Amino acid sequence: MLYAIDILGVIAFSISGVLVALSKRMDPFGILIIAFVTATGGGMLRDVLIGDTPVIWMKNPTYVYLIFGSTVFAIIFRNKIDYLRTSLFLFDTIGIGLYTVIGVEKGISAQLDPVICASLGVMTACFGGVIRDILCGQIPVIFRQEVYATACFLGAICYLVLRHFGVDNSINFIISGVVVIAVRLIAVKFKIALPSVYKD
Amino acid sequence: MLYAIDILGVIAFSISGVLVALSKRMDPFGILIIAFVTATGGGMLRDVLIGDTPVIWMKNPTYVYLIFGSTVFAIIFRNKIDYLRTSLFLFDTIGIGLYTVIGVEKGISAQLDPVICASLGVMTACFGGVIRDILCGQIPVIFRQEVYATACFLGAICYLVLRHFGVDNSINFIISGVVVIAVRLIAVKFKIALPSVYKD
Amino acid sequence: MLYAIDILGVIAFSISGVLVALSKRMDPFGILIIAFVTATGGGMLRDVLIGDTPVIWMKNPTYVYLIFGSTVFAIIFRNKIDYLRTSLFLFDTIGIGLYTVIGVEKGISAQLDPVICASLGVMTACFGGVIRDILCGQIPVIFRQEVYATACFLGAICYLVLRHFGVDNSINFIISGVVVIAVRLIAVKFKIALPSVYKD
Repeated sequence: MLYAIDILGVIAFSISGVLVALSKRMDPFGILIIAFVTATGGGMLRDVLIGDTPVIWMKNPTYVYLIFGSTVFAIIFRNKIDYLRTSLFLFDTIGIGLYTVIGVEKGISAQLDPVICASLGVMTACFGGVIRDILCGQIPVIFRQEVYATACFLGAICYLVLRHFGVDNSINFIISGVVVIAVRLIAVKFKIALPSVYKD
Repeated sequence: MLYAIDILGVIAFSISGVLVALSKRMDPFGILIIAFVTATGGGMLRDVLIGDTPVIWMKNPTYVYLIFGSTVFAIIFRNKIDYLRTSLFLFDTIGIGLYTVIGVEKGISAQLDPVICASLGVMTACFGGVIRDILCGQIPVIFRQEVYATACFLGAICYLVLRHFGVDNSINFIISGVVVIAVRLIAVKFKIALPSVYKD
Repeated sequence: MLYAIDILGVIAFSISGVLVALSKRMDPFGILIIAFVTATGGGMLRDVLIGDTPVIWMKNPTYVYLIFGSTVFAIIFRNKIDYLRTSLFLFDTIGIGLYTVIGVEKGISAQLDPVICASLGVMTACFGGVIRDILCGQIPVIFRQEVYATACFLGAICYLVLRHFGVDNSINFIISGVVVIAVRLIAVKFKIALPSVYKD
């Protein structure tokens, strides 16, 4: 079940990477690398910073094949991906729900402070997109439209609070993941965002 | 005492990050991340490259709270920060003095070659700003106005030389930190720089 | 012999970094950093991701002196470097041949899956240039002109296949390195590239 969500998340992240890379007219190698960092960058950064190396995709080549397959698929059917837009948005949203709780859980295993664990959750879910944008020469989207990160942060806090009150890990996993997903869907649907710090 | 300097340095670095992020019209999440990498990026990169993980801010959540507080402060009072410009410049300068010697000392503890230790000193003091600029989509300021890096390098060399001659660590710490601070202040005051490599 | 190739590679990579940095009008410190990451970035990223730290240049300060010397040389003689263009292209090509097989071999030592080993080979040879371009504020050249990466990938595959069939490591090293070099020279000479994914 978790594995199935992970796969959907990797596919959605890879395809989002391919679309950005195509818009920058990259060649096949560049597109593949961008898909790769979009899908694995958050977890990779987290693993490097907490010292859990080799990073996760090196221990499990399935990720490499999956990203390669998604990239080829997305390049071939790129003109038809608009039809998949809603599915991809859902996969992506489910993916960040999962990655957030995985990141928090990793921090707990490393016996880090709760605020650090929450940061690791947000990092796992969001920093693949940050690295994608840097490699594509643009300021990270997430730094200007923060709903994505706020949803992850709220889910991470939820996970830590429920855990503190002794809620079973599996149930907590599901609840907190759903919080991320729900916050994001609601925020996008009703165009809710943190208050702007700019007056004009 | 060192701790107080560290705190002043983190505050000055965070606020410098906030100001750059605001100029790029980032939203609150983006501003916080930029403040964070500005304050912690140099030490984080150093720790990752020498393999001393989890990186330092993960072991001490005080940094996270401090950066969060400085960011909120800087966003709220951003129109009044001009009044603090001189104080911030001084904090920043004192901060790089401290970070340079901390970086060198870390290299010595890891039994690395002196030239590597000096590089680590410069990296600790200067690479937070480099990562900030990359994330903000601009070529790092320090690559075009090197006084900052030169001051750190001279302080690092001073530390290594005095250490070689058996000067006590605490005294050496102060002298070398002061060298960084003095070189920077003098260079800024008298507009001294390395000779340009461009003729026009 | 390998050491001599390594040195030629580092020199060629450093000078390529200097030339990009000069075109961005960086100052001496910036130029040195760009030369440094161009020459060491691929291996540094590989070492960090597999957890083999301190990264390689920290264990061997010769790299630092070599890059420093190449940088000073390239800055002084930058108007005459055109005369060296062919030599530098050859050094660079020989260098990527060597770095590819070193990267693959490192993955094998860490007992990673063959597809990961091949990725590490490409990463070692190609990602110095990627980091150089990011620090210089441009989309990595290699993401748009992939011949370089394809040559490394084919060499890495060759190394893994020959190894599977029990070819002696030293001979394999030479054959696979020559594959990288030959593919690149032929592709550049006859302007061969992967098929474009864009119609216009």
